[in-house]
Amino acid sequence: MESLRYSLQLLSLIFLLFSIWASAAQRVIPRLGVRRRTSKHEVPQTTSSFSSDIKIYYYTQTIDHFNFRPDSYATFQQKYAINSKYWGGADSNAPIFAYLGAEGPLDDDLGSIGFLSDNAARFKALQLYIEHRYYGNSVPFGTMKEALKNESTRGYFNSAQALADYAAVIIDVKKTFSAENSPVIAFGASYGGMLAAWFRLKYPHVVLGSLASSAPILYFDDIVPQDGYYSVVTKDFKETSQSCYETIRQSWAEIDRVASIPNGLSTLSKIFNTCRPLNNSSDLKNYLEYIVTGAAQYNYDAPRYLMSDMCRAIDGAANGTDTLGRIYGGVVAYKQNHSCYDVNEFSAPSETNDGWGWQSCSDMVMPIGHDTNGSMFPPSPFNLTENNDYCKKLYGIEPRPHWVTTYYGGQDIKLILRRFASNIIFANGLKDPYSSGGVVEDISDSLVAVTTAEGSHCLDIIVANSSADPHWLVRQRNKEIKIIKQWIAKYQADLLQLKQRIPV
Amino acid sequence: MESLRYSLQLLSLIFLLFSIWASAAQRVIPRLGVRRRTSKHEVPQTTSSFSSDIKIYYYTQTIDHFNFRPDSYATFQQKYAINSKYWGGADSNAPIFAYLGAEGPLDDDLGSIGFLSDNAARFKALQLYIEHRYYGNSVPFGTMKEALKNESTRGYFNSAQALADYAAVIIDVKKTFSAENSPVIAFGASYGGMLAAWFRLKYPHVVLGSLASSAPILYFDDIVPQDGYYSVVTKDFKETSQSCYETIRQSWAEIDRVASIPNGLSTLSKIFNTCRPLNNSSDLKNYLEYIVTGAAQYNYDAPRYLMSDMCRAIDGAANGTDTLGRIYGGVVAYKQNHSCYDVNEFSAPSETNDGWGWQSCSDMVMPIGHDTNGSMFPPSPFNLTENNDYCKKLYGIEPRPHWVTTYYGGQDIKLILRRFASNIIFANGLKDPYSSGGVVEDISDSLVAVTTAEGSHCLDIIVANSSADPHWLVRQRNKEIKIIKQWIAKYQADLLQLKQRIPV
Repeated sequence: MESLRYSLQLLSLIFLLFSIWASAAQRVIPRLGVRRRTSKHEVPQTTSSFSSDIKIYYYTQTIDHFNFRPDSYATFQQKYAINSKYWGGADSNAPIFAYLGAEGPLDDDLGSIGFLSDNAARFKALQLYIEHRYYGNSVPFGTMKEALKNESTRGYFNSAQALADYAAVIIDVKKTFSAENSPVIAFGASYGGMLAAWFRLKYPHVVLGSLASSAPILYFDDIVPQDGYYSVVTKDFKETSQSCYETIRQSWAEIDRVASIPNGLSTLSKIFNTCRPLNNSSDLKNYLEYIVTGAAQYNYDAPRYLMSDMCRAIDGAANGTDTLGRIYGGVVAYKQNHSCYDVNEFSAPSETNDGWGWQSCSDMVMPIGHDTNGSMFPPSPFNLTENNDYCKKLYGIEPRPHWVTTYYGGQDIKLILRRFASNIIFANGLKDPYSSGGVVEDISDSLVAVTTAEGSHCLDIIVANSSADPHWLVRQRNKEIKIIKQWIAKYQADLLQLKQRIPV
Repeated sequence: MESLRYSLQLLSLIFLLFSIWASAAQRVIPRLGVRRRTSKHEVPQTTSSFSSDIKIYYYTQTIDHFNFRPDSYATFQQKYAINSKYWGGADSNAPIFAYLGAEGPLDDDLGSIGFLSDNAARFKALQLYIEHRYYGNSVPFGTMKEALKNESTRGYFNSAQALADYAAVIIDVKKTFSAENSPVIAFGASYGGMLAAWFRLKYPHVVLGSLASSAPILYFDDIVPQDGYYSVVTKDFKETSQSCYETIRQSWAEIDRVASIPNGLSTLSKIFNTCRPLNNSSDLKNYLEYIVTGAAQYNYDAPRYLMSDMCRAIDGAANGTDTLGRIYGGVVAYKQNHSCYDVNEFSAPSETNDGWGWQSCSDMVMPIGHDTNGSMFPPSPFNLTENNDYCKKLYGIEPRPHWVTTYYGGQDIKLILRRFASNIIFANGLKDPYSSGGVVEDISDSLVAVTTAEGSHCLDIIVANSSADPHWLVRQRNKEIKIIKQWIAKYQADLLQLKQRIPV
């Protein structure tokens, strides 16, 4: 179970916020993120193999790169970590592997992101891990709570500013290590994967190439259908077991039915062994939705497969077990044995939930929803107007839902990028519901999709486990390593050729 | 003289501002810009051939694209102009030619920018001209004076925001004309040329390609030597006439010598026929520096060549004419006959001077200077610390001299862009001193340099004059037209192929 060091991480505050929003009380927003985290108390284990070689630094970062008001000159301390143990040095232009932090503290990632540490020796790479602004120790304006509370200080918290931060840090690190000619490869996963892809597009002079793991860069505006995410979850469960899918599909109405009879909530509390008596059926349904979507998104949880485990429990319950009893069995299979189940566990405030709550109401508006059309969930379409009203009420501003496509593009991506840009790997597991917003076909020779039919969210980038990882995952990583090697080789050849042409 | 409809435009406020700065009182910053403008009173003629078909519109533009503070949601009315007379329409995906306005009112450009109107019929192109924020009628916060006076409102005035403006306007125009599939070609000259090049790099999903005319995108940080500009001026004059060059080179010391003797300033006023008595010799030297650099930068002023005219006057003065008398002859040849000469004419406040004064103290820090090393000007090295102090004193903030290279790149441009990006024409006249900061060699098959040995600043993009334009200029334009045709043809083929592959 050693490879289980990444842990459950699913949305909580957003859900909580949405549940206080009457018209969308039932709303669950699937979380991005590399790891599942079962609760706020569960701290991820760190990878002892490289943590002792890692050194922590802080960079004095500009709060607003795109404005020249005096207050835009304010600074904050941005955390980054370096492991130079395997670095080949500036003389040989050895590469720099840069991990772009996402919506959480860097410390969590240092324990679970493995691609860099697993491959540093092979590439003689310097490892650099950079924390995203407003998370962990990289919070401007004192505390995150303070920064997010104030309608003026939270405005600086967005993806374009974060990318500029990464550029500034990487340029500084290259200077410090006299590594001006070292090629940089960026890595990111989930939201961080979007950042990695966009970083190569916007800052090609800073980064030679990017591995964007499970990056749903097309899940904005109307590029992909809003029910993409839930369609994949539904398809995943259907493929795992038709009867399991049917049981889940029927369970929502069954919960409503039981809830509506006298003492129904108490009955439900008993069936689902909840830690506290249920106040309403929505909490339970939302909890179950997180479990079901989480099972699909993080399906392969070495060495087990979550959807198979759940469906085995749901389908294999003793004869005569009713729908809700079967679903409860699925919950136990997913969560493993607990003395009781906390239906609000995903709603606990956390940096990730607080931060993403804001981000999804400013630039990161992902229109994820579902109607009755073939989904195994009760209808819950995404409504842009309602979403804007909700965000406005909560934060005083409306989101800018079209900004991501204005700034980063995404529409007609094949047409646009087949003759522009290079060196991005879009990695996706096709079991991952977020793959519905990912790039899953090659765009050009060097903008390539690496997909695995069995893969779920961000598997390629987490710490490898040579004894437990399935062959398809090993193959995916090897393919990525080979591509990155080619980028670097071509770059080194270019560099040599240009140097030789320069008259002395 | 019909092609003389573009007029003198050289720096004034910056010079004025610099002249109140004691330690750099002698400083002259060469101006960017398509046209020379002899004085603030000279209004450029408009091109009657297309002005009647042009319609003016306003777009409600966001003041700050990169922040989500409530005040970043403020808007202003951004002016743009459309000429749809020759447009082939959305059904045939006919192209859109988008001119990106630079540091001045759009109205001035509508009269002098000719590449779009001269070629619209041939390409069946929709012509779109967009004004740069904070100039002309596109000024936020009331008036430009107000907006620039306030240290908080002027912060939004920078190139990254301007590029985002252009993206928003173009996306909106495409929507309005149902022209989602129409390829857009961006055009810009001088500072606007930098914007055009950067726009293709940052917004490839908005613009298929860019013609960047006389765009010194490498004149930032330490990419090119700071004396590049003045070296070219010196070389230009040397090549025009060695004795002319010698006379100019000697004139500065001669002015100082005369100024230091009793009634020296009065003598100088008389020699140079100044409209008002000189208060100091610096005003005169700065004036002459503007004339000399302007002659090189805008050398070909159809049908005459300014440097040849000046040197013919300097060299051909009556026997016995002394150095200053010869220089005065050069001034008359350059400026043509006036009853007197206003040495402060380049210092008059104007939108361009006020606006660029700010821009060059925020993101557009171009380290242009010169030492004694082979320049025909008195030493005036660029000193970053002094520059920062000066800007800080004037605007309350220090410039961010490294931001342009952090955000747009430029260092090792060949190494970086040979395998990234496409479809930019870097056009330069090699007589233009700003070509020292331009891309004058091909980077790749589709990032190409189109240079002319005889050309000066932005000639290719101004209105063509078929009877007067020299063959090398005609050839340059034809080459550019051919390249743009190829971009569009390839795009149309891509579009067709992708459409056919999409399952119905």
